[in-house]
Formats: sequence, structure tokens, C-alpha cells
Amino acid sequence: KHILIVPGDGIGAEVTTVGKQVLEAIAAKFGHDFTYDEALIGHVAIEATGKALPDETLTKMRAADAVLFGAVGHPKYDNDPSAKVRPEQGLLQMRKELGLYANLRPIKLFDELLDASSIKPEILRGADILFFRELTGDVYFGEKKRSEDRNTASDLMVYQRYEIERIAVKAYEAARTRRSKVCSVDKANVLESSRLWREVVQEVAKRYPDVETEHQFVDSAAMMLIKDPKRFDVVVTGNLFGDILTDEASQIAGSMGMLASASVGDSTGVYEPIHGSAHDITGMGVANPLASVLSAALLLDISFGLKAESEAVIAAVDAVLKAGYRTRDIADANTPADKLLNTAAMGAQV
Amino acid sequence: KHILIVPGDGIGAEVTTVGKQVLEAIAAKFGHDFTYDEALIGHVAIEATGKALPDETLTKMRAADAVLFGAVGHPKYDNDPSAKVRPEQGLLQMRKELGLYANLRPIKLFDELLDASSIKPEILRGADILFFRELTGDVYFGEKKRSEDRNTASDLMVYQRYEIERIAVKAYEAARTRRSKVCSVDKANVLESSRLWREVVQEVAKRYPDVETEHQFVDSAAMMLIKDPKRFDVVVTGNLFGDILTDEASQIAGSMGMLASASVGDSTGVYEPIHGSAHDITGMGVANPLASVLSAALLLDISFGLKAESEAVIAAVDAVLKAGYRTRDIADANTPADKLLNTAAMGAQV
Ligand SMILES: CC(C)[C@H](C(=O)O)[C@@H](O)C(=O)O
Ligand SMILES: CC(C)[C@H](C(=O)O)[C@@H](O)C(=O)O
Repeated sequence: KHILIVPGDGIGAEVTTVGKQVLEAIAAKFGHDFTYDEALIGHVAIEATGKALPDETLTKMRAADAVLFGAVGHPKYDNDPSAKVRPEQGLLQMRKELGLYANLRPIKLFDELLDASSIKPEILRGADILFFRELTGDVYFGEKKRSEDRNTASDLMVYQRYEIERIAVKAYEAARTRRSKVCSVDKANVLESSRLWREVVQEVAKRYPDVETEHQFVDSAAMMLIKDPKRFDVVVTGNLFGDILTDEASQIAGSMGMLASASVGDSTGVYEPIHGSAHDITGMGVANPLASVLSAALLLDISFGLKAESEAVIAAVDAVLKAGYRTRDIADANTPADKLLNTAAMGAQV
Repeated sequence: KHILIVPGDGIGAEVTTVGKQVLEAIAAKFGHDFTYDEALIGHVAIEATGKALPDETLTKMRAADAVLFGAVGHPKYDNDPSAKVRPEQGLLQMRKELGLYANLRPIKLFDELLDASSIKPEILRGADILFFRELTGDVYFGEKKRSEDRNTASDLMVYQRYEIERIAVKAYEAARTRRSKVCSVDKANVLESSRLWREVVQEVAKRYPDVETEHQFVDSAAMMLIKDPKRFDVVVTGNLFGDILTDEASQIAGSMGMLASASVGDSTGVYEPIHGSAHDITGMGVANPLASVLSAALLLDISFGLKAESEAVIAAVDAVLKAGYRTRDIADANTPADKLLNTAAMGAQV
């Protein structure tokens, strides 16, 4: 199996280094032969080649059996609304080119981190949500326009039936292996694209009579996620609402630094933390590598079908947390100094 | 002063009844002469007239000095993506027709309710956020399309410079009377409309050098709101992001049942709870009327400039909570049975 490592920007390099070490450890322990290559994306790719997603990177991605991804983004573009080339374009282009239409974001709290969240433990205990975020449609990819006088700007929020159907099917299939509940999130009381979304999900739901379906408006879902996260099993939603709700839901898992995601679709799967490039802590060696480690676990499971290997990674993370080890973002006042680890030391423990 | 009561659907009637009683009590106590009228909107208006916003209602709104609003919505339309007339259209048309471009949503926790939230008290204590949600633009009002084969649906997310500028100015003006911090929320790393948003807010920010400005992406803001609500003072954002973030932020105030909003702009101001029509509890008499009461307080302050009267209402709510009275949504295991009130009894206490 050939794995492409794409660190990207900011802390991407620090965390994927650890993710790769874990893959190497698994290969050694279980007798697999993984080969690796590396490629550029985002700001570092723009600096080196002028493009956020160089052709060479795309070719390597297509040739790989799976991609372990870091993060993209750089503050220099964020407050320059007129920048022509942006790191994020590389990420979006990759999703589109590889047909990565389904972004799976499992939100589950490790028991040891109950206290790391801003939400009360009794609200969190037992919460276990699997998000299916649609990843290649919506306002992300609809036509963008700026009027000639620069005073009007627009983005087209658009969905097609087949795009909604295929992600809904993935969500319902997954629900069958879990608690058989799907919550579809939209804004059908206002948006036409959401009305199509709801129509198609209702149709797909009929094919899964054994799965319970609920429709929620995005505003209400944003509230319920915090009020009562346990009521959710599988959540399926569009690209924009999924972006917002999964970041919000990171608080259910104690820290963004713990959350992995899998982007799958027509070809090579891409595995990445849901956190961003975090330039404020880049180079300090304090980033939490566990989201990248858990991304590696998803990679082993979903792209390679290596269930036992994937579970071994998750068990290792669990053991490390049980032993009291913490990175800064998941530490609290009770964490003793010798258990507070930097990125590399946390990687070594896992 | 002439006040139009527009109860709308679901619990709207139950809660505005209490809101009106509080206005009457204030008028009696402070020697004002308020007159009242009533009008239909939403599902009840569709049933009576075929229109979600009857002309008569709009005329009455224009003639009033302020509007006390309930809620709109009905489950019958929610799962029927093909419905032609919808209660929500009445609400959106009202906002557009009255030029209510600024929706103010103050999020502040009454100390007594520290335990009613799903968020930890130490995270919440001291949180005090004032949202400015843009209310007459964005994907709410952009062109909606459905292809002839019904397989493609779209909504145009669109902003114009002047729309962003006027709401930003309101936000900065308000920040000056508070802790002098503005956080503008957008998705400028992906959306052209957000890039215009950021550009304009940056320009307005220059006119307020005494106010600290921060720009956040909406996904990150959705996370930070729960992780560290105290870092926010004034938040300004678009219609869609504002809808999602303020519902989410209701958890900071313990319950959606506590949150009031003011919609202001070119003419008559409209004051309403941020909660919806809540058909699941309609007619049971258990709805929390305090959001409508606090909406009346905002009305007195913003539309009538009656500061002392407004503060008297807020003090009354505070006193009632201090005395231990609770409606169901803000009660907890320690609330004694004789302090658990229904809608009318809570109104009487206030
Ligand atoms: C970096 C950004 C374009 C991206 C997105 O919005 O999809 C990120 O927030 C994510 O969730 O992967
Ligand atoms: C009912 C609905 C159309 C409305 C909105 O989305 O604006 C509501 O959620 C609100 O926040 O006032």
C-alpha cells in the first residue's frame, strides 16, 4: 500500500509527522509493507510553484492508495480580500478533482477528556455522533461573482439531486451499523437548495424504513448540538452547514485537536484533522498530534479495510490519555507538569 | 405611543400576551399612554387570508410606533418541500418591507440561570455578547431557482457594499458604548460575498480606531462561542451566519426561552423572542414568556427611548428569577414544585 503524506501549511507538518510514525509502527507490528511519498499543497505550494495544488501533487494523489493530509491556510491571505491565489483553493480543488464528496467526521469523546470540554460532563457522557458533510457542492463550488464596480459580490448556493442522493445513501448505510438514526440538517424554510435537499433525503429515507429520520433546521441543530448532543447519531448535511456544525461539535470532543476526518468518494481517500493550520502555534512543537493519529486510524479502516490495525491505534490513544498524558489544548489545572507533553513526545507515547 | 401586537403562530400568542401585560404594567406605573392593536402573520394569516403577510398587517405595522412580535412557522409546511405559500415568507417580507436590516440579539446570562445551561458555569460567568445580524440581504433574499427537471436548486448568496456598511456602523457604534471590541464573522477564505464583507468591515473599522477589530471564519466562531464566550463583545455577521450563531449562542443564556431580539432599520422597530413557534408545546401554557417580556424591554429602550422603564422590566425578570421562579425550560432538579410556573403565572410574577 502506498501512502501520500501531504503536510500542507502551519502545524500540518508537525502533526502529519506523528501520523506517519504511527502508520510505520502499525506496519512493523502487523507485518505490512507501506510505502510513502510526500507532496506540497496550500501556501507552501504557492511559494514553491505559484499554484495552491501543483499538478505533481494531484498526480501523486491519484496514484496513492490513500492520502494523509495536514492542513492549509496562512494568515497573510486572510485579511487580504483581494488575494488572487489562496491556499484554500488547493484544498477545494483537491476535493473536487478527487471526487471526495463525502466527509466523515466522527465526534466522540474519550472518557478521559470529559473535563477538557466547556460543556458539562453529564451532557457529554455517551455522546457519539458521525457527521456526513457533503464536500464537493454547495456555495463552496457555485459560481462566484464580483460586479465591475466591486460593490456587489455573490456566491451561488446550488445542489443537484444526485449530489444529495449519494451522500444521503452513505449516511443511511452508516446509520444501519450504528444506532439507526439519521438527522438531516438544512434550512428548508428559507432556501430552495435546502428544499431539494429535504426532498431527496425524504426519498432516500423511504429505502431505509428501519432507520429513523429527523429533519432539523440548521439554526436549531446548532443549538441542540450543545444542549443535548446525545440525541444525535448520524447527521447528514451540506458543505457549508457541515463546516460550521462540525467545528462547533469539536467542543463535544473536548478539543479540535482530537478530531479526525475522512474524505471519500470516487477514488483515493484523504484523511485529515478537522483543525486548521494554526499559525499562532506553528513551529512551537506544542500542537496536539492526536487528530492526525486518529486520521491515520480512519485511513487504515476505511481505505485499507484494516479494522484491527485501526482499533490498535485508537486503543493506543485511549491508553495514552488514561495514563494522564496531555498536550496543552487538552490539559487542565490538574495535569501534572511531567504529563504535559509536546507534539513529538505525545507521538512517542502513542 | 401605539404598539402593534403580532402574535403569529404556535406559542407566539401565549408569550406576546404576557409581553403586552408587562407593557401595560409599565404604562400604568410610569404614567404613559400606550395604545394597542393586533394583526395576523404566518400560518394563521395564510389560513385567514391566503397570504403570509396580509396587506392590512403591513399597513398597521407602518402606522405603529413599534411592533411586539411572536413567532411564525408550522410543522405542516416543514416537511412539504413543495409548499407554495409558507409562514416564514411573511416574516421575511416584513423584514424587507420595513427595511429592518439590523437584528440585535443580546446574549447575557442571568446569574440565577448559570446552572440551566449545558455549558460549564465557569465558562459562562460574565459572558455578555451583543450580536448584530444583518437581516435583509444574503442568501435569504438572493434569487431562488429550481431547474425545469426539478433536479437542480439554487439560492444566490449576495451582498452589496451599502448593506454591509450600514450594519457594520451600527455594530461599531454599539461597541463604543460597551467594551469596544467588534468581531466580524464571515467565510472569506471561500466566499466572494464574504470577501466583500471583510473588505467593507475593514474600511468601517478604520473610522473607529478606538474599537478593537477581529475577523473570524464562521466555522471557527461557532467553536469559540462555546469554548470561550467571554472573549466576545459585539459580533457582527451576515443573515445566514447570524441565524445559526445566535441560536447556538442561546445556550450561553441558559435557554432559548430567555432571548429577545430587536429588528431595526428604516422605520418601525420589531421586537421578538429568538425562539420559534414551538408547536410541540403550543396550547399547553408552559412556554417561557420571558423572551417576549425582554423583547418588550428592548422595545421600550430602543423604539421609545424609555431607559428607566426598560430597566424596570429587566429588574423585574431578575427579581423573579432570584425568587426562584422557573418555567419548565429553565428549571432544574432543585426547582421546588411550587416555584415551577406556567406561562401565565410567570407573567403575573413579573
Ligand atoms: C480551510 C477551509 C476552506 C475548510 C472548509 O471550509 O472546508 C476547512 O474549514 C475545513 O473544514 O476543512
Ligand atoms: C423562521 C426563520 C425564517 C427565521 C430566520 O431564519 O431568520 C428564524 O430562524 C429567525 O432567526 O428569526
